[in-house]
Amino acid sequence: MPIETIAILGTGLIGASAGLALRAQGFAGRITGWDPDEEQLHTALSRGAVTTTAEDPLDAAANSDVTLLGGPVFTIVEWLDRLATVLRDGQLVTDVGSVKGVLCQHTRGRYNGPEQPVFLPGHPMAGKEVGGAANADAGLFAGSAWLFTPCPNAQVSPAAQGMAIEWRGWVERFGARVMEMDPDRHDVLCAWISHMPQFVSTAMCALLEEEFAANPDLLPIGGRALREMTRLGASPFSMWRDIAHTNSEAIARSLHALEQRLAHLRENLKTPELRDEFAEANKFRVRGADPQK
Amino acid sequence: MPIETIAILGTGLIGASAGLALRAQGFAGRITGWDPDEEQLHTALSRGAVTTTAEDPLDAAANSDVTLLGGPVFTIVEWLDRLATVLRDGQLVTDVGSVKGVLCQHTRGRYNGPEQPVFLPGHPMAGKEVGGAANADAGLFAGSAWLFTPCPNAQVSPAAQGMAIEWRGWVERFGARVMEMDPDRHDVLCAWISHMPQFVSTAMCALLEEEFAANPDLLPIGGRALREMTRLGASPFSMWRDIAHTNSEAIARSLHALEQRLAHLRENLKTPELRDEFAEANKFRVRGADPQK
Repeated sequence: MPIETIAILGTGLIGASAGLALRAQGFAGRITGWDPDEEQLHTALSRGAVTTTAEDPLDAAANSDVTLLGGPVFTIVEWLDRLATVLRDGQLVTDVGSVKGVLCQHTRGRYNGPEQPVFLPGHPMAGKEVGGAANADAGLFAGSAWLFTPCPNAQVSPAAQGMAIEWRGWVERFGARVMEMDPDRHDVLCAWISHMPQFVSTAMCALLEEEFAANPDLLPIGGRALREMTRLGASPFSMWRDIAHTNSEAIARSLHALEQRLAHLRENLKTPELRDEFAEANKFRVRGADPQK
Repeated sequence: MPIETIAILGTGLIGASAGLALRAQGFAGRITGWDPDEEQLHTALSRGAVTTTAEDPLDAAANSDVTLLGGPVFTIVEWLDRLATVLRDGQLVTDVGSVKGVLCQHTRGRYNGPEQPVFLPGHPMAGKEVGGAANADAGLFAGSAWLFTPCPNAQVSPAAQGMAIEWRGWVERFGARVMEMDPDRHDVLCAWISHMPQFVSTAMCALLEEEFAANPDLLPIGGRALREMTRLGASPFSMWRDIAHTNSEAIARSLHALEQRLAHLRENLKTPELRDEFAEANKFRVRGADPQK
């Protein structure tokens, strides 16, 4: 197996979960970790998500077969800039960022060409509303999709190709469903099924926070339905700022469509149109947004 | 204890769960069940949620200390009409409907006066997106709020008052947090914390159903976040039609406020305003919509 050493730059929830999953699945090589937040890094080390910590993250990447980049999208963009100068042909960089088109655009000319390192964008569709290595979990990816969005016109050497194939194999061993997709198509898809739900939950929480500022004791009355619809309200701005910036057009389109749909529903609270909305919604659930079904 | 006999008219999810909870908490009297759907009634009987089934629901109510009304709001309205002619002073009617103001208006002059039966509106803030006696659960109400909204100017006899106090006692034994509230205030509160989340989930599901009609296989990629935000999309129109009709003003106000909030967020995907929205949403979650916290 060609992958013997892995660097994880960004040992928060996803990076540390990947490290735990690698070790749970029997990866016996070195996993070097680094994080801008020393506490995250030490938590990742003490939990066994990495086997060693890096003094210098660029050195760690330069001396690893595979580098996994975690963190917000712009942080990943920065890493890709810095790593382009120290990595060489045959080394693989992959990431867990939530937006993919911008990464392919950004790396064009410096990765995925002859004599260049390979960048294979990846996106595990798993997470929690609470971040950090302390919440990492070897089973986080089981049953979830893990999307790979190879950059258009990549020219990958056979050595790097082998590395990419092996990395996909590890992801499958995590229990994830590996899927391949065009990066721009990925971003539009995620605007609908991931980013819109997040921003709706954020808007709902912000609205309720203001509306009930004087009576916060009433909110727990809402029960499970309210709890689920507002769970994502805890998501960190640091992560979502970058997503909003780098996928703003597709997100704006999905939000605008939802605003119109809500207005339609509101104008039809007492008309038979309401039945059609429920019928469509019921159909959606029957066909199953639920992969466990 | 004055309550020896209870009639449950409407043995769907909530009615049958109340029956199971009564028996689990040691209620040893007779529980007579009736449902317009014979299958629901037989399921409730075979699961032990009722001890006997009624031939004639009006007879059953006339011969019970307490009558519990389940089902959609307009069904409860109809029951209240029919029961007014057969019940007498000292008998208690309560319900589990989702809108309360309309019930107090509707019963004025026929309940809650001298020589009249008592109507105590109730609303357990618990449920599932799947209905029916088959999904009933004695523990459904544990940890949830159960709101009572006594009608204004009720003149309740001491006998009926004792019955109402005992019924609250049973509800507490179910593990519910009993709260008292003005009926109109209840309806405004529920528009925000229960009805808005439902209609948002319905709108989101209907939108995604149309958007992904040609590619339904992409939807499971969404994972837990999408699953939770769309779970309520399975809710039945039959129940929500009545809620939309009887609480339309308050629901329309909350939906309109959310539409505006979404538009604001959409227009600020790339501005520092977005940080404020996340900060408000984070505050909401920290203060805890979560009663388990």
